[in-house]
Amino acid sequence: MNTSAASASWAHEPEIRKAVEAAMETALELSDGVRGTTSPNPPVGAVILDSRGRRVGAGATQPPPGPHAEVMALREAGERARGGIAVVTLEPCSHYGRTPPCTRALLAAGIAAVRFAVSDPHPAASGGAEVLRAAGVDVEGGLLASRVAEGPLRAWLHRERTGRPHVTWKYAASLDGRIAAADGTSRWISGPTSRAEVHALRARVDAVVVGTGTVLADDPWLTVRDADGELAPRQPLRVVMGTRGIPAGARVLDSTAETVVFATHDPGEVLAGLAERGVVDVLLEGGPTVAGAFVAAGLVDRIVAYVAPTLLGAGPAALGDAGVSTITEAHRWRLEGVTMSGEDVRISAVPVTGEGGD
Amino acid sequence: MNTSAASASWAHEPEIRKAVEAAMETALELSDGVRGTTSPNPPVGAVILDSRGRRVGAGATQPPPGPHAEVMALREAGERARGGIAVVTLEPCSHYGRTPPCTRALLAAGIAAVRFAVSDPHPAASGGAEVLRAAGVDVEGGLLASRVAEGPLRAWLHRERTGRPHVTWKYAASLDGRIAAADGTSRWISGPTSRAEVHALRARVDAVVVGTGTVLADDPWLTVRDADGELAPRQPLRVVMGTRGIPAGARVLDSTAETVVFATHDPGEVLAGLAERGVVDVLLEGGPTVAGAFVAAGLVDRIVAYVAPTLLGAGPAALGDAGVSTITEAHRWRLEGVTMSGEDVRISAVPVTGEGGD
Repeated sequence: MNTSAASASWAHEPEIRKAVEAAMETALELSDGVRGTTSPNPPVGAVILDSRGRRVGAGATQPPPGPHAEVMALREAGERARGGIAVVTLEPCSHYGRTPPCTRALLAAGIAAVRFAVSDPHPAASGGAEVLRAAGVDVEGGLLASRVAEGPLRAWLHRERTGRPHVTWKYAASLDGRIAAADGTSRWISGPTSRAEVHALRARVDAVVVGTGTVLADDPWLTVRDADGELAPRQPLRVVMGTRGIPAGARVLDSTAETVVFATHDPGEVLAGLAERGVVDVLLEGGPTVAGAFVAAGLVDRIVAYVAPTLLGAGPAALGDAGVSTITEAHRWRLEGVTMSGEDVRISAVPVTGEGGD
Repeated sequence: MNTSAASASWAHEPEIRKAVEAAMETALELSDGVRGTTSPNPPVGAVILDSRGRRVGAGATQPPPGPHAEVMALREAGERARGGIAVVTLEPCSHYGRTPPCTRALLAAGIAAVRFAVSDPHPAASGGAEVLRAAGVDVEGGLLASRVAEGPLRAWLHRERTGRPHVTWKYAASLDGRIAAADGTSRWISGPTSRAEVHALRARVDAVVVGTGTVLADDPWLTVRDADGELAPRQPLRVVMGTRGIPAGARVLDSTAETVVFATHDPGEVLAGLAERGVVDVLLEGGPTVAGAFVAAGLVDRIVAYVAPTLLGAGPAALGDAGVSTITEAHRWRLEGVTMSGEDVRISAVPVTGEGGD
């Protein structure tokens, strides 16, 4: 098999390009499906097409130390991969880590062309495209790049760039910004659709963080349950931060999932500790004090707010002291998306460039 | 001219129906354009088509004691109205008020068919359709009825049903529900698009209500200005409620618009006083205390919230005490619309049926 770039000119023909685009959509879905299960590795999806553009294999990153997406897809394709195209959401790695480099597997399988979405920013891994090109493979990157980068690879790319986990602060509040009534009751401010979405959010992260205040006030489980209330097979790490004591019988300490307690008020310390444990994607579900500390430190990378059409007029606000004393010091964000979530509004926002560490 | 129903069968032909629908869209726009200028009369739009469906006249309600929409449209149409169709957003009135009944004007002009959107709920006026039918006019109601009833005629219909003005509570808050920073500064929480929209809102109501607290804290003008900062020719009534004194030099007391002060904390008293003055449509721009009093009394009929993607973490909330002490007592609303307003989210909500007086 001749794998020189010239020999893969067929891969640029319109019908093959169309097949590649469809394959990348599939790869994106596959990667999305393994979010929360691959850290510290990135959730990647891969599809193998034969030289006529027919799908002959597909796969996604397995939990460590399992194989990467390319290897899974190549396994399914077998001999049909020879002379075909590998379509991957991330540039194939060229370094030895827990697994041999994917570039080697692709070359060994006789792949003639590689299409990937996002370039690998990892110093040791980058160069995968170059290694493949040097071996005569026709390589192109950038297909669906922004959707992959803002979707399944968002947290991992953030960790690669900054060295710390990506933090999504999620809260549910009334239209007047309160997370509980004057007497502390809060079930349910948001509707069933929003609550189900929160469980879906939890299922896709590595860790859920709250403060001791939330544990003492609400005694939450912080677990992922399905619509029937059944525990999901995989549970994110439960993280409690703060210096107040937690009762031994607290639900967050039960055996349904692993829990780690950081006796600190410093969000940076918590994130450093979580990074050491391989955590890439964090869901912050803390109350006003913890949220205020993260926001003040510029350590929130995304807000997902469920705003319910209810009015309380009293009770704790979603956000406590965040270091703002006058309006010019306000933390400015950019709306990323506004959608309906059942009877609630779901607002997602990201820091205005230069803020929040991104 | 024979004006019996049988003779107007041409008015039911498809191309004429199409012309009538387009005419009703125009009538709706015309009525929308005179919102805030017609109270205590309803803002109505009318279009006259000749018997071939050609538009020969159009008009909207004039400020009292000026003519109603039908009369304005008939004036433009003149003799061309004879044998034609009148398309009106509200059932023509049949009673003598400040002006002679519109039914009389329509019959005198020789109108063969009348199409209206919303039935007149006013006891003295209703029966316009019957009066016209009895005179042999082909009459149909209901075209674009809900758009007219929820749009230009919303406040007037509400006043007819309940006897009190319609109240829209408008506020601008940070994502965490605050209307000012800890030191009281609030310029600008919302962006320029939202601020321009607020001036457009004010331009379409009869009165703008704040509390003495807002006057003392922000010293607002409460006037309508265009994009260049020029005062609009018509200004809504400025209303201040509360028992604290207002400095004689307060901007709200200047000569740019009329101002009335109610020395009470009771929203019901304020609305009764405004109803007596012929006010139909009220924009509540008060701070947390006044808003809380209105919400607690069930006297807010619509919320328009501009939520800016900023975080403050401290400072006053949009809504103060609204009589809710535990979550089961929360005021439940229904989202009416969620749209982008520049960089902000604009959320409008209406009370869940049975609440809020609607």
